[in-house]
Amino acid sequence: MTRHTATYAADIGAVRDAAGRIAPYAHRTPVLTSGALDDLAGRKLFFKCENFQKVGAFKFRGACNAVMKLPDEQATRGVVTHSSGNHAQAIALACRLRGIAAHIVMPKTSMPVKREAVAGYGGHIYLCEPTETGRHDTCEDIQRRTGSVMIPPFDHPDIIAGQGTAALELLQEIPDLDAIIAPVGGGGLVSGTCIAATALTPGIRIFAAEPAGADDAARSLAAGRLIPQTAPDTICDGLLTSLGELTWPIIRDHVQRVFTPRDEQTLAAMRLLRQRMKIVIEPSAAVTVAAVLSDEFASLAGLTRVGVILSGGNVAE
Amino acid sequence: MTRHTATYAADIGAVRDAAGRIAPYAHRTPVLTSGALDDLAGRKLFFKCENFQKVGAFKFRGACNAVMKLPDEQATRGVVTHSSGNHAQAIALACRLRGIAAHIVMPKTSMPVKREAVAGYGGHIYLCEPTETGRHDTCEDIQRRTGSVMIPPFDHPDIIAGQGTAALELLQEIPDLDAIIAPVGGGGLVSGTCIAATALTPGIRIFAAEPAGADDAARSLAAGRLIPQTAPDTICDGLLTSLGELTWPIIRDHVQRVFTPRDEQTLAAMRLLRQRMKIVIEPSAAVTVAAVLSDEFASLAGLTRVGVILSGGNVAE
Repeated sequence: MTRHTATYAADIGAVRDAAGRIAPYAHRTPVLTSGALDDLAGRKLFFKCENFQKVGAFKFRGACNAVMKLPDEQATRGVVTHSSGNHAQAIALACRLRGIAAHIVMPKTSMPVKREAVAGYGGHIYLCEPTETGRHDTCEDIQRRTGSVMIPPFDHPDIIAGQGTAALELLQEIPDLDAIIAPVGGGGLVSGTCIAATALTPGIRIFAAEPAGADDAARSLAAGRLIPQTAPDTICDGLLTSLGELTWPIIRDHVQRVFTPRDEQTLAAMRLLRQRMKIVIEPSAAVTVAAVLSDEFASLAGLTRVGVILSGGNVAE
Repeated sequence: MTRHTATYAADIGAVRDAAGRIAPYAHRTPVLTSGALDDLAGRKLFFKCENFQKVGAFKFRGACNAVMKLPDEQATRGVVTHSSGNHAQAIALACRLRGIAAHIVMPKTSMPVKREAVAGYGGHIYLCEPTETGRHDTCEDIQRRTGSVMIPPFDHPDIIAGQGTAALELLQEIPDLDAIIAPVGGGGLVSGTCIAATALTPGIRIFAAEPAGADDAARSLAAGRLIPQTAPDTICDGLLTSLGELTWPIIRDHVQRVFTPRDEQTLAAMRLLRQRMKIVIEPSAAVTVAAVLSDEFASLAGLTRVGVILSGGNVAE
């Protein structure tokens, strides 16, 4: 396999820079272990708990890195993004911490509780039609009026580098992992994980997990080309999007396999971690746990110690 | 206030010994922080997460210390205890780890899920009448037949020393706390906390919390003598018992104040930590959170940084 490191959107230097940049703001989340889960998986699992991260998800890492990296003259004009989920809260909080305006475009159909969370972090909310065009036009209009800079949810070098800091911390604490698994939606977390993990632990195997009802990454990897996700059908609301132009090449070259659990397996994994590990994770995070507990994963050899990135804990209650 | 350290059941040396003894078996649990909770409390809170401890509660610390400390000739004859809760699971697991028999006396009325958990750790279960006499007679009978040694849930030097390791770890990680708060039932956790905390951080203030419906510690402290708990009425099933002969003097001399939240405040605190911190705690743990969020606690001066021991996460589902 040929790897064109130089052409990727981020490298290990960018991940290390991001780690230093977000350190004053982000939680260094704990790595939890559980004998009960190890028994079920048949191997040692190390859970990197990004559900305990600021705003309840790893998304704060990338958003914080991107916002804090802006030159002052750009930052003063504010930031704009579109998101109905964790990225929206992450950008709003990062902007509040920097003392600049956050313009968050959210679909009219987004959940009120998510809008309240964004407003709670001081974000200015703009409701748009729940379409690609509606989102795009609203963002452009805000950019034109305010001069604010666009920070998208995943397909951006600073976002990828920021998300890579979760794997960086995990491997600093547990250096001798045989593999890491992370959920894949747009691919920001997985691509950052690839960059960080292969640099720190050469030979480490990288796996991804996504719901069977939104399995574009698995199909893309099988086809060797980016296949967009259409009509996703899953409870994993953080994993509906297609891969990005920047995240795809990194994933294509480094991810060995994408697991695609069914939603009922994912829900069972959520319950299991609440009961046995006393932690709350969201479906988009639980998909990784469902994957490592699957028969398919159990059949893989040479995986004694596996890192699992629990991406977030924001469930509606 | 006169303090008769020499007469206490445990000292800081015993806590340090316990820490070394249990280190190969117990989790070193993380200390979590939350900006949202800090805002609500009006101070910095540091949560020592014993809900992530083996068997889901701090009880494993004391049980493991007591079981591992037994001389071989005693250990081979096994251990007996009575408990319907976390101590039962803790003794069963500690005995399994040492490879000796655990005889667990549980009331007939105990929850099947708790009995299953004890059996899952390899404990031998003996059902008794749900009375003091039933429990006592069954334990005595087992001791007579097996020669096993009794390890009670809290009123024992090795249990107190073991429970003190939670505060020891907390203060090793966050040395400059102004106060620590822990829940009080029989007093094993709070008395161990007193021993560890006052040795590591002279001048630190120790608080306790218990439900309004089982407020024997508050009444004992007010009266200056041990007042037994009769007819407790609370959802905090881990905090129903009276203080012990060994735990009471330590608590009497070191605990500044006992807070007594109502159960509805405790339930609200459980929900809050699930939503904002993504962790599951049991009511007997949430009582401390309800206490630090109370108006009464808010009115205390000089408390910038407060440690909160989250004692366990075992809720019935």
